[in-house]
Amino acid sequence: MVERFVRERDWNQFHTPKNLSVGMAVEAAELMELFQWRDAEGSAALMRQARARRAAGEEVADVMIYCLAFANRTGIDVAGAIRAKLAKNRRKYPVRTYRGRFGPDAPRATTPPPRPQSR
Amino acid sequence: MVERFVRERDWNQFHTPKNLSVGMAVEAAELMELFQWRDAEGSAALMRQARARRAAGEEVADVMIYCLAFANRTGIDVAGAIRAKLAKNRRKYPVRTYRGRFGPDAPRATTPPPRPQSR
Amino acid sequence: MVERFVRERDWNQFHTPKNLSVGMAVEAAELMELFQWRDAEGSAALMRQARARRAAGEEVADVMIYCLAFANRTGIDVAGAIRAKLAKNRRKYPVRTYRGRFGPDAPRATTPPPRPQSR
Amino acid sequence: MVERFVRERDWNQFHTPKNLSVGMAVEAAELMELFQWRDAEGSAALMRQARARRAAGEEVADVMIYCLAFANRTGIDVAGAIRAKLAKNRRKYPVRTYRGRFGPDAPRATTPPPRPQSR
Repeated sequence: MVERFVRERDWNQFHTPKNLSVGMAVEAAELMELFQWRDAEGSAALMRQARARRAAGEEVADVMIYCLAFANRTGIDVAGAIRAKLAKNRRKYPVRTYRGRFGPDAPRATTPPPRPQSR
Repeated sequence: MVERFVRERDWNQFHTPKNLSVGMAVEAAELMELFQWRDAEGSAALMRQARARRAAGEEVADVMIYCLAFANRTGIDVAGAIRAKLAKNRRKYPVRTYRGRFGPDAPRATTPPPRPQSR
Repeated sequence: MVERFVRERDWNQFHTPKNLSVGMAVEAAELMELFQWRDAEGSAALMRQARARRAAGEEVADVMIYCLAFANRTGIDVAGAIRAKLAKNRRKYPVRTYRGRFGPDAPRATTPPPRPQSR
Repeated sequence: MVERFVRERDWNQFHTPKNLSVGMAVEAAELMELFQWRDAEGSAALMRQARARRAAGEEVADVMIYCLAFANRTGIDVAGAIRAKLAKNRRKYPVRTYRGRFGPDAPRATTPPPRPQSR
């Protein structure tokens, strides 16, 4: 769908890898702007409001459309790239070390056990 | 897959909408950095080199993983949001006005007809 | 100093307004990355650590160097632009309406009076 | 001036290092957006139009205001940080290796000598 949209407008000439990466950053910034002055709770609360949630949905869609356009343009297999990156992240952030912390030295933020996730 | 990765590490506590939007912007910037000093041609040429292409694939995957994590967290239907945004863009950028130009007043950049796209 | 650094390397050819704006965004993202997973308190605490503070200082300097290079390249008077923008912001965000809140409808975040700022 | 503007509105509570870095990135993205679809020449040409130049000046001012607010908040000496970073960059990018190229392996982009810079 993205490729067709681009081709119908003959926009591939503007869709250089560089410009598409700029597009991602611009749209990500527009999403970020929604949360700029809010803290964690405030940004979660905002996402429970229908209007802000719809606005966020549009921005996320914009970011992903640029990602897909980038993949179309450069021949990157998006699904494969995501799978490969998750596999790499699994090795880089072993559960044992990173569970409940975002860095190896960061204190665990949650009091254990936060909720029964096992089933 | 993304949700599982996050849940196994109990990272939902860090995955506020705000932080995930920051993540998108940070990863988009890392992609952009690959092309920072290159022009259109140079950035396209770079993407024909296996190593740079692999690096770009990782960055795009990072951006998309944050998009998916954001959608998981906020309950946004990604596929629906993309479809809706493309429909909106089709109305906003009618082919007649925008074919070959990125703005209504921008000069057409391509000498017509660039290639027989009709069939 | 910035102009001289650029000229000595004959880098003006790369310093298009576009590339310099990308540079700002890339460096701002590197700064942002330091705080990505931290909340307000955590990011303030981080800035009390000498090493992280030095790293942040370098990133802020990078952002400003690109701003100055942008101004040098486009002939923008930086000091004048900052003064003009602050004047505009003063009109846009009158103290009466915005004191203690980041939006006209945002609840005041501070319990009054936070500290005797009057003298 | 920046500190006074912030203090009058009691905005220091929102001006965490994290939020200010987000602010820089958001404003840098707004500047970048002006050039998103333009190439080097097009972005330089745009900056010769009074209206676009004024818009760019405002965005650069926004970026710098956030930089100054960040420095005010964290106690970073902006002028010192810029000087130190330029000194570091001078060592990192020796003129001999980098003159006319943005990377050690990048081809020199200019035909020598572009203009008599030596005196």
